[in-house]
Amino acid sequence: MKKLINHVDDVLAESLDGFAAAHADIVSMGEGRLFVQRRGLRKGKVALISGGGSGHEPLHAGFVGHGMLDAACPGHVFTSPTPDQMLAAAEAVETGAGVLFIVKNYSGDLMNFQMAADLLDREHATVIVNDDVAVENSTYTSGRRGVAGTLIVEKIVGAAAERGDNLAVLHTLGETVNKATASMGVALTSCTVPAAGGPTFQLGEDEMEMGVGIHGEPGRRRVKLTSADEIAVELTGAILKELAPKRGQEVILLVNGFGGTPSLELYLMVHAARKVLAAAGINVVRHLTGPYVTSLEMAGCSITVTAADSAMLALWDAPVHTAALRWGM
Amino acid sequence: MKKLINHVDDVLAESLDGFAAAHADIVSMGEGRLFVQRRGLRKGKVALISGGGSGHEPLHAGFVGHGMLDAACPGHVFTSPTPDQMLAAAEAVETGAGVLFIVKNYSGDLMNFQMAADLLDREHATVIVNDDVAVENSTYTSGRRGVAGTLIVEKIVGAAAERGDNLAVLHTLGETVNKATASMGVALTSCTVPAAGGPTFQLGEDEMEMGVGIHGEPGRRRVKLTSADEIAVELTGAILKELAPKRGQEVILLVNGFGGTPSLELYLMVHAARKVLAAAGINVVRHLTGPYVTSLEMAGCSITVTAADSAMLALWDAPVHTAALRWGM
Repeated sequence: MKKLINHVDDVLAESLDGFAAAHADIVSMGEGRLFVQRRGLRKGKVALISGGGSGHEPLHAGFVGHGMLDAACPGHVFTSPTPDQMLAAAEAVETGAGVLFIVKNYSGDLMNFQMAADLLDREHATVIVNDDVAVENSTYTSGRRGVAGTLIVEKIVGAAAERGDNLAVLHTLGETVNKATASMGVALTSCTVPAAGGPTFQLGEDEMEMGVGIHGEPGRRRVKLTSADEIAVELTGAILKELAPKRGQEVILLVNGFGGTPSLELYLMVHAARKVLAAAGINVVRHLTGPYVTSLEMAGCSITVTAADSAMLALWDAPVHTAALRWGM
Repeated sequence: MKKLINHVDDVLAESLDGFAAAHADIVSMGEGRLFVQRRGLRKGKVALISGGGSGHEPLHAGFVGHGMLDAACPGHVFTSPTPDQMLAAAEAVETGAGVLFIVKNYSGDLMNFQMAADLLDREHATVIVNDDVAVENSTYTSGRRGVAGTLIVEKIVGAAAERGDNLAVLHTLGETVNKATASMGVALTSCTVPAAGGPTFQLGEDEMEMGVGIHGEPGRRRVKLTSADEIAVELTGAILKELAPKRGQEVILLVNGFGGTPSLELYLMVHAARKVLAAAGINVVRHLTGPYVTSLEMAGCSITVTAADSAMLALWDAPVHTAALRWGM
């Protein structure tokens, strides 16, 4: 295992400390590193809280700040955070308008966020993100997995929370954005969880995992490596089948790197995905390209499409100031 | 070779087309893809032009836009752009105040930028960036290599150009920032140039290349993989030896990923580098962390430190709107 680390047990703590120091203008670290919270909480704004296993950075701590999350709870690598983390975060950042939890659909995460919600003595609701169209039930889920589309939910709902929308409105909006969003990914290599010390799965020199999950869990099938254009046809095709957008539909296109894929290839995939979308009469009006929802150093990418109306686009465009997404301020 | 590509010959063109489409609000593509230029040129502003081999994205095209570059010339992967590219870019974006070329110190780049400058019928000057303290002469250079510090030069000089500083002032400022900036990197794996089809160099399972260049070229020595803390001591130590900052000096710290290193590890390196700097009494007042000057999918990172005075910090903080760096607007 080749990693820039000291001891396996200290990876998360040391990385979080580096993150908090580097972004001290935006975030502060919660007691005991249970959560990362936004500086400058706004009284009477619904508190948005997310979290999940580490190893997907910048998700979620990189999206804490003005216009997105109020707190993020980092679990160990590829492991759900514990209920006491969400509870501590909620108690730290709730300012009177309630808490909206944004949770990726994995059994462990759901159970732990549910437990925290049950213990929480404040108004709250939960949006479950399940944008991955690759497989129905999977290794760690009942139903579909939540993957890169989570950041689109966090951005759009975050902007609505910032302007003062109430908990019920945000809850509905989150579910609407989730339904309008679909993703699918492909892996060219495995990743290595530090505590495991070896690759999560094995792929032959000429193989790829089509429909891979963000923990390296199996997708639809293992196939021979093919061209970027053919990959884009399969990923984007599966997404369009799910969303069934009308011709002329405006969409946000997120081409997300899994951590080990260079920018050169991600933009090539943007080009490939745009060709598929153009052929279907879909109008890409916003782009986001880069390693945003990663699987440590896994090579590969996912494509996410959100069918957005003008209200959603305005919220997407609204100012945001986080470690990983920043515009308009 | 596992890459998200179609044909090896089309990698650069397809990637550039994806980039230009994704960032059409910021950039447009020059005729024949010779250069990427900023939209909305400003009359009477000195034109900043950089460029170099591809494979280091987002450097340089990702830094074209308000507050940084006016044009970037992409060569083939790890190959200097040609003089006709710089010449075409200069003629497209020069608006009456002259051209400042920002060039990384590699023999091929220097020769080609010099040839373009000789042919250019406009006022011009050149800043050569050579921030890599790992080695003196190297595979592709006389003198030190230009690496991740280039983006710091481009950001600070770009901000000064935006406020209207003239060519002579910008030239001096660029040289000042270059002198105040030092970098060194380490590789844990090689990268694979698409046209070559195999790894640029071989590293054993337990080895790393200390002082590696951004094309995978040799550094100081090949050694056994060690801890993040020991790596930070060596990289940051070499940088401090070069810059010899006084205690209390304010610095910008850039921890740059080479393309295959997850965010989790980069922030852990931030934590490690901060400890070394704190022990030397150095005050880190600005951070930038991420894959900004890459070597395709190489695993590893570089550390860059710029000893910044308050004028340089103000220019660093000035608004920027490019594909890869954006704040204040």
